[in-house]
Amino acid sequence: MAPHPIIELTSEASWSLIEDKFSPFAKETLAKLIEFQQNEVIPAQALAHAQIPTDPSKRWKVVIPVVEELKVKARKLGLWNLFLSKTHYPEHGVPLTNLEYAVMAEVLGRGGHIASEIVNCSAPDTGNMEVLARYGSPEQQKKWLLPLLDGKIRSAFAMTERFVASSDATNIKTSIVREGNDIVINGHKWWISGAGDPRCKLHLVMGKSDPGNASPYNQQSVVIVPADAPGVKIIRPMQVFGYDDAPEGHCEIIYDNVRVPIGNLVLGWGKGFEIIQGRLGPGRIHHCMRSIGAAQMALDLMITRVTDPTRKTFGKLLYQHGTVVADIAQSRAEIESSRLLVLSAALQIDKYKAKGAMKEIGIAKFVIPLMACNVVDRAIQAFGAEGVSQDQPLAQLYAGLRTLRLADGPDAVHIQQVGQRELKRAPGLTKKHAEVKRKEKALLENAGIKTHL
Amino acid sequence: MAPHPIIELTSEASWSLIEDKFSPFAKETLAKLIEFQQNEVIPAQALAHAQIPTDPSKRWKVVIPVVEELKVKARKLGLWNLFLSKTHYPEHGVPLTNLEYAVMAEVLGRGGHIASEIVNCSAPDTGNMEVLARYGSPEQQKKWLLPLLDGKIRSAFAMTERFVASSDATNIKTSIVREGNDIVINGHKWWISGAGDPRCKLHLVMGKSDPGNASPYNQQSVVIVPADAPGVKIIRPMQVFGYDDAPEGHCEIIYDNVRVPIGNLVLGWGKGFEIIQGRLGPGRIHHCMRSIGAAQMALDLMITRVTDPTRKTFGKLLYQHGTVVADIAQSRAEIESSRLLVLSAALQIDKYKAKGAMKEIGIAKFVIPLMACNVVDRAIQAFGAEGVSQDQPLAQLYAGLRTLRLADGPDAVHIQQVGQRELKRAPGLTKKHAEVKRKEKALLENAGIKTHL
Amino acid sequence: MAPHPIIELTSEASWSLIEDKFSPFAKETLAKLIEFQQNEVIPAQALAHAQIPTDPSKRWKVVIPVVEELKVKARKLGLWNLFLSKTHYPEHGVPLTNLEYAVMAEVLGRGGHIASEIVNCSAPDTGNMEVLARYGSPEQQKKWLLPLLDGKIRSAFAMTERFVASSDATNIKTSIVREGNDIVINGHKWWISGAGDPRCKLHLVMGKSDPGNASPYNQQSVVIVPADAPGVKIIRPMQVFGYDDAPEGHCEIIYDNVRVPIGNLVLGWGKGFEIIQGRLGPGRIHHCMRSIGAAQMALDLMITRVTDPTRKTFGKLLYQHGTVVADIAQSRAEIESSRLLVLSAALQIDKYKAKGAMKEIGIAKFVIPLMACNVVDRAIQAFGAEGVSQDQPLAQLYAGLRTLRLADGPDAVHIQQVGQRELKRAPGLTKKHAEVKRKEKALLENAGIKTHL
Amino acid sequence: MAPHPIIELTSEASWSLIEDKFSPFAKETLAKLIEFQQNEVIPAQALAHAQIPTDPSKRWKVVIPVVEELKVKARKLGLWNLFLSKTHYPEHGVPLTNLEYAVMAEVLGRGGHIASEIVNCSAPDTGNMEVLARYGSPEQQKKWLLPLLDGKIRSAFAMTERFVASSDATNIKTSIVREGNDIVINGHKWWISGAGDPRCKLHLVMGKSDPGNASPYNQQSVVIVPADAPGVKIIRPMQVFGYDDAPEGHCEIIYDNVRVPIGNLVLGWGKGFEIIQGRLGPGRIHHCMRSIGAAQMALDLMITRVTDPTRKTFGKLLYQHGTVVADIAQSRAEIESSRLLVLSAALQIDKYKAKGAMKEIGIAKFVIPLMACNVVDRAIQAFGAEGVSQDQPLAQLYAGLRTLRLADGPDAVHIQQVGQRELKRAPGLTKKHAEVKRKEKALLENAGIKTHL
Repeated sequence: MAPHPIIELTSEASWSLIEDKFSPFAKETLAKLIEFQQNEVIPAQALAHAQIPTDPSKRWKVVIPVVEELKVKARKLGLWNLFLSKTHYPEHGVPLTNLEYAVMAEVLGRGGHIASEIVNCSAPDTGNMEVLARYGSPEQQKKWLLPLLDGKIRSAFAMTERFVASSDATNIKTSIVREGNDIVINGHKWWISGAGDPRCKLHLVMGKSDPGNASPYNQQSVVIVPADAPGVKIIRPMQVFGYDDAPEGHCEIIYDNVRVPIGNLVLGWGKGFEIIQGRLGPGRIHHCMRSIGAAQMALDLMITRVTDPTRKTFGKLLYQHGTVVADIAQSRAEIESSRLLVLSAALQIDKYKAKGAMKEIGIAKFVIPLMACNVVDRAIQAFGAEGVSQDQPLAQLYAGLRTLRLADGPDAVHIQQVGQRELKRAPGLTKKHAEVKRKEKALLENAGIKTHL
Repeated sequence: MAPHPIIELTSEASWSLIEDKFSPFAKETLAKLIEFQQNEVIPAQALAHAQIPTDPSKRWKVVIPVVEELKVKARKLGLWNLFLSKTHYPEHGVPLTNLEYAVMAEVLGRGGHIASEIVNCSAPDTGNMEVLARYGSPEQQKKWLLPLLDGKIRSAFAMTERFVASSDATNIKTSIVREGNDIVINGHKWWISGAGDPRCKLHLVMGKSDPGNASPYNQQSVVIVPADAPGVKIIRPMQVFGYDDAPEGHCEIIYDNVRVPIGNLVLGWGKGFEIIQGRLGPGRIHHCMRSIGAAQMALDLMITRVTDPTRKTFGKLLYQHGTVVADIAQSRAEIESSRLLVLSAALQIDKYKAKGAMKEIGIAKFVIPLMACNVVDRAIQAFGAEGVSQDQPLAQLYAGLRTLRLADGPDAVHIQQVGQRELKRAPGLTKKHAEVKRKEKALLENAGIKTHL
Repeated sequence: MAPHPIIELTSEASWSLIEDKFSPFAKETLAKLIEFQQNEVIPAQALAHAQIPTDPSKRWKVVIPVVEELKVKARKLGLWNLFLSKTHYPEHGVPLTNLEYAVMAEVLGRGGHIASEIVNCSAPDTGNMEVLARYGSPEQQKKWLLPLLDGKIRSAFAMTERFVASSDATNIKTSIVREGNDIVINGHKWWISGAGDPRCKLHLVMGKSDPGNASPYNQQSVVIVPADAPGVKIIRPMQVFGYDDAPEGHCEIIYDNVRVPIGNLVLGWGKGFEIIQGRLGPGRIHHCMRSIGAAQMALDLMITRVTDPTRKTFGKLLYQHGTVVADIAQSRAEIESSRLLVLSAALQIDKYKAKGAMKEIGIAKFVIPLMACNVVDRAIQAFGAEGVSQDQPLAQLYAGLRTLRLADGPDAVHIQQVGQRELKRAPGLTKKHAEVKRKEKALLENAGIKTHL
Repeated sequence: MAPHPIIELTSEASWSLIEDKFSPFAKETLAKLIEFQQNEVIPAQALAHAQIPTDPSKRWKVVIPVVEELKVKARKLGLWNLFLSKTHYPEHGVPLTNLEYAVMAEVLGRGGHIASEIVNCSAPDTGNMEVLARYGSPEQQKKWLLPLLDGKIRSAFAMTERFVASSDATNIKTSIVREGNDIVINGHKWWISGAGDPRCKLHLVMGKSDPGNASPYNQQSVVIVPADAPGVKIIRPMQVFGYDDAPEGHCEIIYDNVRVPIGNLVLGWGKGFEIIQGRLGPGRIHHCMRSIGAAQMALDLMITRVTDPTRKTFGKLLYQHGTVVADIAQSRAEIESSRLLVLSAALQIDKYKAKGAMKEIGIAKFVIPLMACNVVDRAIQAFGAEGVSQDQPLAQLYAGLRTLRLADGPDAVHIQQVGQRELKRAPGLTKKHAEVKRKEKALLENAGIKTHL
């Protein structure tokens, strides 16, 4: 096992802080992942991209051949379902902590769109597998979880709704109604990632099952809807800055009187909120670490470009101009501190579960995507027009990272929640402050000194 | 003539500063343009977009019907070739100053991609018409300028090269060689905007005609190449983020032994630099004012969204949350000051031509596109995921504005040039400073005071 | 009259925009002011500073000799009371518009603390003279306004209160009670600028005269309190980043049963709000323009420093390192756009009075002091430790500009007000937007096209 | 030992990352320090401040009584010389790692100016003790180090020079000449912190001893100069903004033919650079952690203020306005990530000494002081004018933090060095990149696919 690539791919300083928290298995897995990623996955990206047809009538029907080949290799190497922690999911999980997986997620973030799928760690499947592993009935697990863990099928999570301000999840309008032993679903969703994939076999649909419930947090349920159920109508793919992200896509879907058996209800009637809250915490950390990997990749590309001897202008290499060196230093510092922030949040999840790490997760959620956007933006600038084109990964990376500032709640929601959490410290601080002032006054009086304070 | 829409569309404060510099003709034209834009152009955008086929094999062959219809209407209203100032182009120009047209360019910037074309004011045709009007021979003007002014054909300007750091134009490699009465062109260009359009009939190609010339600014020439000349090979459209901007596009083109008659040389052998310098100044101002119009449109959309009563979250309208009001105030202030900056640059061009307004143009060039990106980015955030999608103009707007930070030289080039220009004030300042210090010392000595200075 | 210094001291681009709005008198006055400032005032700053004793028991009793000498010269040159516009104050005013004076205020801003006083244009006297000229009774004008206009006495405006969140002026607690023909004042104020000056003869005191009034805007009155009235107790000078700004200072004052005749009431009972609103608008513009002058001076110093051949590090002049040139370009651009912003606000005041220019004034108020802080901060960085010391004006300048972000309402108040003003455009925009959507739909239907919008 | 205060004073998330790296002794010491600081030091600040006379002729002669009392208490508690790591200084050191001390330095940073001195951990004594402990001769250690470790005397480090761009230390001009068994020193220094203190007994003076040496890094030596040696002339205290930081101060000093015995040379002739390089690394980390403590204190004050029920404006608590909650969240996130950054740098020093942690130290050096300035600036804004005054610690804190952006090399120097270090990764990245491109091409060719890359 070569320690060197690990350090290079995480940063020695952060590695020093966490190395002793890594099990031998985790270290070995990380080393294998880095090697596999570098030698197999990253070079395969261009081919994978080329294997997606440009014809709109065909690009949603493809299963990318090179990705399937690499999935076989990855599985043989034990690089599979790394996101599912045995601690939390003893039956199906892999013996990795959130902290350990976080580092691997950064590695995956350097391998573009295909890297996560190749090791069966791509959203929204990861969150859905977590939901099914934690809350699914034995039948649900057998029918949906096992093939998902097996990488045979894919899935979607249908929450966001069109015409609804759904960053407040209590606004959700999709109706979930029990009729005998059936559940009937009607609703209009969009931005349902992964639903375009020909292998997508199930949607976890969140809707209102009990709109009259006194608690706004008990009005929702989550139901498993087979992708081919009658009434599931995929309207169109949504675009992100011109990209459709085929074949997975982000779909607009109408559920028109879709009928599923009562056994497809997950966890229980009115348990929708509980399900999504458990689902989102670790997923946010995964996204953040992948974003850091993406930012690191962008910085590496930028360094390559600004030192390229064929790119001289006005007699100088690009890095010798203006603010380029400062931009690189700034990017390095931002990546470094962001990584530490997310690693510390991952460790808090390991210690206190997602619920006990909400502040750290919230901070990461609003800091990292913006940071990564900024780093990628600087790299784009170094590449000139090529930076915004299809010849470099940067513009598409930017589009994805920009969207992360909106997904799972826009930045503003997380900023407000973190701020409000800080404000909860006010009573304690005020009391401590008053105590200091009291002592201060006594000391001054003892010394016979008058002040204006 | 209704004064009110003019004010609304420019901001009363900036209008107060410039109103007395507008001729009655300019005021009347502006009022007509605003009305036409609002009632005809803006509502036609969706239709124009729908009239471009999604099939890659067809989308480069279309002439958008509704745009053609509106061009007829625009011309009847006298809204045609507004960019071409009679002062500088007495024969073909319109009696508008750069300042007057700048305000109109802002109006056009609110009408999306089609607005400028409808009044025959779209880049790169505008710059090309300026070149031909100023430097073209009578034959060139007859053959190319008149149909361009007539809106019958379109054109491209081929400068940027692949594999070359062409933000330093002296790096250009395309060869322009005289052979008898012919000129032979070989080169590899990309990002040639407009070359995809089926009506594009000519390319103005910049290349090295005299690579051994002692002055790096006399090595280049510009040649008119008919778009259908043998050897002109359009390789592919470049994408900006995920947009291909069909049917105009930004093309990669190889000029493979393209042969044109010597009469196609513009201005003279070795005059390439002179041509592009005259071409770029006013064009940058046009881009900046359109960007301000775009930013204003984004802010208007944002205001509409955050006050939309159907978009409540957590019991409040969007604007009642977090930093939304502050974001709006900030955007308002930035738009306001940016507009004044560009208007003052336009006035300097009117007074001293582009060459005498280089500092003001340079400042506008690096301030405005970034400002507009920031304003649009805030608007995207207010729209949530819809903001990055095809259902709002914001993401595509962002992509275009982001590219402006790279086009005609990346921000860094203009920042350095403005900074260097400021540094030229150093000798004068140093002298003045020394004079003050001398007097200061005399005053102190007279008063018998010793200091450490 | 030399046009050149005017341009240099305003920027040619902004001068072009406003030159034709300047009267011959204004141009001549401006030219004289620039010359006087450069040759007399700026060189006298060090002496003026040296003439203030460092001994705390003496520094509040001094009238700075060189300032008094220069006041005589200024008056002879007609450089006196330039802030008081004849348009608004026909009897006592000078024939200058707000726009014209704004440019002069920028010039004054380059001359440090003493410049404004030398031409009798220093706050808070300026605002107080405006109040007395507009609202004072003939007796008040005779007793207080004339000596102020004459530069014989100085004054204070006592509004801000200790222990009170007085950025909301309705929170003010000072009581103003009528007893027979007397008014009795009790209150605890602080940050009362100018009250430390030995020549300060009157305080305009704002307090609650009618706390039970249904309208929170009719509860306040303003009363003239002679500085030597029994019960006026100056507690201490407040410091600003360690500076006490002696001899003027910013004082904490207790009004302890201060009794004045009823004739000292200004304008009328309950007219306090009306008075302060009229008072603040132009004053904010003056502060902003002086801030721009200060920023310009800081940039000039920075340019001198970074080109100083005795300041080489690592073999290069300072400007050849890192981001210095970019910082200079950025500062240049920020000063340029800020100046235009304030000039356009000044013109709006001329056209519509302060009340009709609230948006423009508000934008200037939150943009300019922050901008000036940033420019000065960059200059400090160029000077190294000397930049924060008493050997350069930068740190004290920063302290003053930083305080402007809090004075007359903190930035946040102005940002919110400008944002709320923008939101008032929502109904109109929403209506216009709906109209566009209606037309858009009709065009699409006519063309037989279905979309998802 | 109570674990809770530790967490509160560091942040639980970062504590989780480092707890297992803390020895029982370190944990116990930290807990004691926190309690001592909270109960004794923080309440004593106002008294300490009041015990410094305002009279300029007296304020440089005082030894603050309450500080001396607390030093006795601190020493009894074992809170003494915590900065001196036993690992590096086995003889005199305390069994604490750099990581462990870093956390304590943050705690000290919350206690204002006096906290570090009370535990004998204040700059420049700390760095000087490190120098003497590592490089001092037995005689030097006996005469100077032991009383310093004992807190009996204080010291200064004289490097920065007036009229010299001394951020490039090779520019230093002070001459150090051997004459027989003496060394003669002539030079003009300023910003010599601590030299104003009546207990300051020695200056470590850096100067040029061998200006003709081929290597610019072997031209300097460091010599111990007794503070009372003939020819040591303290000219004046420099001010930081308006603060003189008496009684320690930052002095301008002329060394006028100062003569010391050859035994006062430290380490060896020409070893000046080696000495300062070893001296600066850990010191920078201490400054950074104290800055984080200061930022944390400012945030705590801000939270207390914006939730204060007596501070309502317009009917709302301050935090319910505008961007206050967002500012608090942003500050929290910045403090959090900054702390992690510095802790990771401290750990790198423990692992690889300062020389092996230059990148991490450099990043911390340019990130943290600016971050702390920003956090304090936001707190100032929350306090209104009181924030810039002597009634809150914020303005003086800001002045100190602002100066840190200049001390030990301005930000720009560290930014450039970190950027250049990143650029050293270019050859490796370029090679790796080429390898990926080679494989990518092979995969595409195998699949028979042509691309434009």
